[in-house]
Amino acid sequence: MTKIIDTLNWRYATKAYDKDRKLTSEQIDTLIESIRLSPSSFGLQPYKIIHVKNSDIREKLKSVAWGQSQITDASDLFVFTVPTNLNDSHVDTFIAETAKTRNISSETLQEYAGMIKGSISSRDEAGKINWSTKQAYIALGILLTTAADMKIDTTPMEGFDNVQFDEILGLKELNLTSVVACTAGYRSETDSYASLAKVRISKENLIIEK
Amino acid sequence: MTKIIDTLNWRYATKAYDKDRKLTSEQIDTLIESIRLSPSSFGLQPYKIIHVKNSDIREKLKSVAWGQSQITDASDLFVFTVPTNLNDSHVDTFIAETAKTRNISSETLQEYAGMIKGSISSRDEAGKINWSTKQAYIALGILLTTAADMKIDTTPMEGFDNVQFDEILGLKELNLTSVVACTAGYRSETDSYASLAKVRISKENLIIEK
Repeated sequence: MTKIIDTLNWRYATKAYDKDRKLTSEQIDTLIESIRLSPSSFGLQPYKIIHVKNSDIREKLKSVAWGQSQITDASDLFVFTVPTNLNDSHVDTFIAETAKTRNISSETLQEYAGMIKGSISSRDEAGKINWSTKQAYIALGILLTTAADMKIDTTPMEGFDNVQFDEILGLKELNLTSVVACTAGYRSETDSYASLAKVRISKENLIIEK
Repeated sequence: MTKIIDTLNWRYATKAYDKDRKLTSEQIDTLIESIRLSPSSFGLQPYKIIHVKNSDIREKLKSVAWGQSQITDASDLFVFTVPTNLNDSHVDTFIAETAKTRNISSETLQEYAGMIKGSISSRDEAGKINWSTKQAYIALGILLTTAADMKIDTTPMEGFDNVQFDEILGLKELNLTSVVACTAGYRSETDSYASLAKVRISKENLIIEK
């Protein structure tokens, strides 16, 4: 198979990081760029990433995330958040950006804008958050693959108290809520999880041909 | 930046496929393997992929997906589905697979099994589907990246009538429901979308440092 399959086999949810090995700013920029380039429904990208650098904040986050050491020990921590108030103004911003990028008039995009606004407003509050979250998870998948391609270790994490994360990160005031986190850095040489056989669904149980 | 950023810039949501160019079975196997290797919460992979080969079925699916030509014209169509009845038996299957893969006794995994079962049963029916769907979207992100790395074009698609898809694919009897689709193949040389400037959120609007 191709090199990318070797890459996906190489990666694993890192349990113990080497505290002394930090990512370079160029590596971090590349990881962020992979998130930024991620596709999303309509291209709207209804999410923001909190890049948590402050070690005190990371200690606090760890305390409401089952004490998982990755949160403080990994080089970097990204918390994916989605808007709690997704509305027409997000669409207007996106349409303005599209017009600017493609050097066309916003007027010609109003039908498209109306379609996106209709799709959003057809969902209730929880539905909007779910929909935004799904888009964030595409970006998470792309981040994990990009990191592995760069031989950077990652740990995607759902296991945290989302309400406490929002509180600690001051997300409420930003009309955001945390949905998933991901640490990045280098595995510790002592992480026994690195050598465990990967458990995955069999192809037979994954695929149904029609 | 790295080659993978070039790869992510190269990809786009393909609108028009070259009907005559098909993926090889080896390429398809690699794409499926990338989905199979995707991480998920607890490693449970609560999803199945319908690989739709039958052209009559694909015509029917297109008719309930805004007539999007990708569904019939792309080499391959994958429909991501999640269980409508996620329950303890999924966990038991996963635990048995883990024990077998790692050559350990299932007994030693019962505490872990209980934790997963508790997490699942804490969610209502819609919550279980949402949670499973998020795991499927990680796999979607990984599939998109893998395909692009292989210079294979893709189109992720949410724009279809999910109830009709379930009906056409006979998913109800399988206790599955469709959540997102993705076509794969080669772009048509005439697809004007290929050369459009990519519209993405700016780094400044994506990242918040803390």
